Amino acid sequence: MTTGASGTPRAVVLVSGGMDSAVTLALARERGFACHALSVAYGQRHASELAASDRVTVMLGAVGHKTVAVDLRSIGGSALTADIAVPEHVDAHAENDIPVTYVPARNTIMLAIALGWAEALGANDIFCGVNAVDYSGYPDCRPAFIAAFERLANLATKAGVEGHDLRVHAPLIEMSKADIVREGMRLGVDFAQTVSCYRADAAGRACGHCDACVLRARGFADAGVADPTHYVPGA
Amino acid sequence: MTTGASGTPRAVVLVSGGMDSAVTLALARERGFACHALSVAYGQRHASELAASDRVTVMLGAVGHKTVAVDLRSIGGSALTADIAVPEHVDAHAENDIPVTYVPARNTIMLAIALGWAEALGANDIFCGVNAVDYSGYPDCRPAFIAAFERLANLATKAGVEGHDLRVHAPLIEMSKADIVREGMRLGVDFAQTVSCYRADAAGRACGHCDACVLRARGFADAGVADPTHYVPGA
Repeated sequence: MTTGASGTPRAVVLVSGGMDSAVTLALARERGFACHALSVAYGQRHASELAASDRVTVMLGAVGHKTVAVDLRSIGGSALTADIAVPEHVDAHAENDIPVTYVPARNTIMLAIALGWAEALGANDIFCGVNAVDYSGYPDCRPAFIAAFERLANLATKAGVEGHDLRVHAPLIEMSKADIVREGMRLGVDFAQTVSCYRADAAGRACGHCDACVLRARGFADAGVADPTHYVPGA
Repeated sequence: MTTGASGTPRAVVLVSGGMDSAVTLALARERGFACHALSVAYGQRHASELAASDRVTVMLGAVGHKTVAVDLRSIGGSALTADIAVPEHVDAHAENDIPVTYVPARNTIMLAIALGWAEALGANDIFCGVNAVDYSGYPDCRPAFIAAFERLANLATKAGVEGHDLRVHAPLIEMSKADIVREGMRLGVDFAQTVSCYRADAAGRACGHCDACVLRARGFADAGVADPTHYVPGA
């Protein structure tokens, strides 16, 4: 482990402002890392996510928080960045059906930026909140993707040349949304500060009907925890 | 192959404005691809590279050219993006010595953005000009890195889920700079339009003394081709 001046090992933690990355940050702190939180402003329509990421990183004691801009709007191809409507949640996805909210290569791009910052910081650990269970059908949330990125990371950087290991941690990857809620409650995460909705309003209030809202609300229900989400009136 | 309206297969080609990516673009065109050129404005100090990328893509017949901004200055860690001086070239690098011009995870980030655009375009082929021979000691220019990225790309995207293959081509990877010069001459690349220098001036004129300049000049000398580079007076 590469350690800071205080002897605490450093990690870069991807923080979106949603519930999954908040729990991931809390877990990385619990495991003893000095956490450098990274948010990526990729042109997402739901920019109130980024405001939530500021609250979450302060709340959970990150030692620093950086937001890096990359303009994925110019690439398009997703309802989250282009002029395509975010649909209501439906349960009956066909197998291999990838929703329009999928952003092409988003997790690859965000992990690549995290890798660059980790290398500049001398951190050997990267945390991200991807989740393969209630994952909306995104290919870049699968365990095989994370394993392939970790392998790439060790070839891409000085770490590989110098013979020390970079690790990519995805501690929520096999958890259900209810597991994530329970884990967050155990760690003292205030979920009211997080925003998951794909079409949250400027105040961070959730629509209640998109995939992200429906999966989140079910997580609270299944965990038997009152849903603290701020919804728009009438949601 | 995914084809455009005309039946021509599409490729995304990373174009920096330097000589290697110009030859790569010419090769991709020769292989029959409709080339969508991608430049990444990552905060490099040598911004005249980006002006060169405009000239190169027009000269070599790309069907489109997009520049995506990602602010790697905020990450730092390199002489190309942070306030660290670009050194003069020296021949005697120690083994495993990575120069300060290395930008942490740069090729991973640029390939990740290329992957996103390829997916949005429906292109199955990505070309990049990385080179493992005269590569200045960068870890992300090695063949094993490209192979690992290709493997990741097929897990990261719809291509993998839908069972078709993404290919990452690095046609120069085993070539010397002299080979690259000869290949460019065969393909009609006007190298005077390209800028390789790490500290080129605003007009794109080269310093003549950084790693990029020295390796490039040797390539012309070894190929027996007159060096058409525009140097600053007295270089």
